[in-house]
Amino acid sequence: MSARIVRTVAELRAVLAPRRADGVGFVPTMGALHEGHLSLLRAARNANGTVVLSIFVNPTQFGEAADLNAYPRTEAADVALAAEAGVDVVFAPSVAEMYPNGFATTVSVGGAITGTLEGAERGRSHFDGVATVVAKLLLAVQPDRAYFGAKDAQQVVVVRRMVADLGIPVEIVTRPTSRDTDGLARSSRNTRLSPDDRAIAAAIPRALRAAQDAFARGIHEPQSLTNTVRAELDGLDPEYVEIVDADSLDPIDEVERPALLALAVRVGPVRLIDNVVLTPGVDDRITLGTAERSHA
Amino acid sequence: MSARIVRTVAELRAVLAPRRADGVGFVPTMGALHEGHLSLLRAARNANGTVVLSIFVNPTQFGEAADLNAYPRTEAADVALAAEAGVDVVFAPSVAEMYPNGFATTVSVGGAITGTLEGAERGRSHFDGVATVVAKLLLAVQPDRAYFGAKDAQQVVVVRRMVADLGIPVEIVTRPTSRDTDGLARSSRNTRLSPDDRAIAAAIPRALRAAQDAFARGIHEPQSLTNTVRAELDGLDPEYVEIVDADSLDPIDEVERPALLALAVRVGPVRLIDNVVLTPGVDDRITLGTAERSHA
Repeated sequence: MSARIVRTVAELRAVLAPRRADGVGFVPTMGALHEGHLSLLRAARNANGTVVLSIFVNPTQFGEAADLNAYPRTEAADVALAAEAGVDVVFAPSVAEMYPNGFATTVSVGGAITGTLEGAERGRSHFDGVATVVAKLLLAVQPDRAYFGAKDAQQVVVVRRMVADLGIPVEIVTRPTSRDTDGLARSSRNTRLSPDDRAIAAAIPRALRAAQDAFARGIHEPQSLTNTVRAELDGLDPEYVEIVDADSLDPIDEVERPALLALAVRVGPVRLIDNVVLTPGVDDRITLGTAERSHA
Repeated sequence: MSARIVRTVAELRAVLAPRRADGVGFVPTMGALHEGHLSLLRAARNANGTVVLSIFVNPTQFGEAADLNAYPRTEAADVALAAEAGVDVVFAPSVAEMYPNGFATTVSVGGAITGTLEGAERGRSHFDGVATVVAKLLLAVQPDRAYFGAKDAQQVVVVRRMVADLGIPVEIVTRPTSRDTDGLARSSRNTRLSPDDRAIAAAIPRALRAAQDAFARGIHEPQSLTNTVRAELDGLDPEYVEIVDADSLDPIDEVERPALLALAVRVGPVRLIDNVVLTPGVDDRITLGTAERSHA
């Protein structure tokens, strides 16, 4: 099996035009594919006649040039993985194809959902970049379903809001965060962690799990739960640890309906984010294995 | 013949789903239909199997509440005119259908094309409102072609930019400004002019025509041409009279390629805009008739 690589929106539309009858599933990525992406591709493969993967390291959602420049780019390996995963079409446009000279349009989601968490730390412009590129990609692919990972929880909320507000005709599917055997959320940025940093980073899922354990014991006060996370981070100094309503991302006084517990923390050269959803009456605690990790 | 009225995006999509094969033409309006709108509907009727008219007085593009409240609303008459014009579907949503609780997304076009002319006078937020509602309408109707009048020249430039930047798959068709027999550009707001104001307003097309005459005599300096307009406005004090590049809306030193001569002026209670395009080597001067006007 091999995936067809296309570089322009025009070619993409031409390739997809005769393939729409059995449904188009779309997984947008910035490449450097890992098991988390592959789980999204499997979900797309199971539900659609055609699967499209996009690989585009979107410059407008990076705040720091250093982070953009350091972002791993592994297209040949990604295309091989995509083919194994049954992807039909890989859309890998250039920056000039996505943002030609004179480009001047921004899709922006306002309010609490972009002002808090990552928006507070990285600025709303990060999510302007995300909303704009996702709108463009959805309009280019015109999929029936698009798949996003729960690790980027706020991104998913922003995308769902943007899609509903503009009325883009697509179903947004969220899949659970894919975790390595030590519990660390899979991320393309993990490849930049040294072995020592990697061992330190494993405190993140342990801290989230400690909060889940406390929640399961009946502790529903956000402050108490975030204190538990901070105490378990083994000296890591998080940029934020917050609990907000899982849909609106508004602050809450008590977890009475699904709440998002989210954090961001720097480990060595890498900024990592992670989260869990706390739902009263539901126990879906994350699994922590050994410090050994799979290289899948 | 009668046009089907639909109030929701869901119903609109259901009605249009079986009608797409022979093309869908779309004319977005704020209602209070006049001959200018009808000329757009005729163009749409000639080129498409199905014609959709939208009627939506979009609150987010009005700066002044008074202007929004005074905007004429004549739905029953509009629907009758639409049926006569061969419209198949009238999409007339409520404000709540277009902007439900929690709505938080803005489509924004930056740069000179929204910073000058109307953007300088009314603020960029006017064009944020226009770009957002047009994006939503285009995604709701998913037309093959959408029709806009040249009277709102800057709006057309903004819409073309937004559609190109986001990659919305639609052809934007611009039709010439429709003018009454005295040359006044047709506008729904004209109904709010008293007979005396109406006679005064007729200076606007005369002033534009005077600049066209000067341009035809070889005068290509923007300042000289805008001075001609100001001199011919018979004491009206325009908010702006400017000549800019017709595509980029950037300032120019000399008319060497198509240029937009645009103005805004208050007459009585109404703010009027008008424009002509000056193209070297092309004589398309507007026609000025008598002060009598048709009521077509």
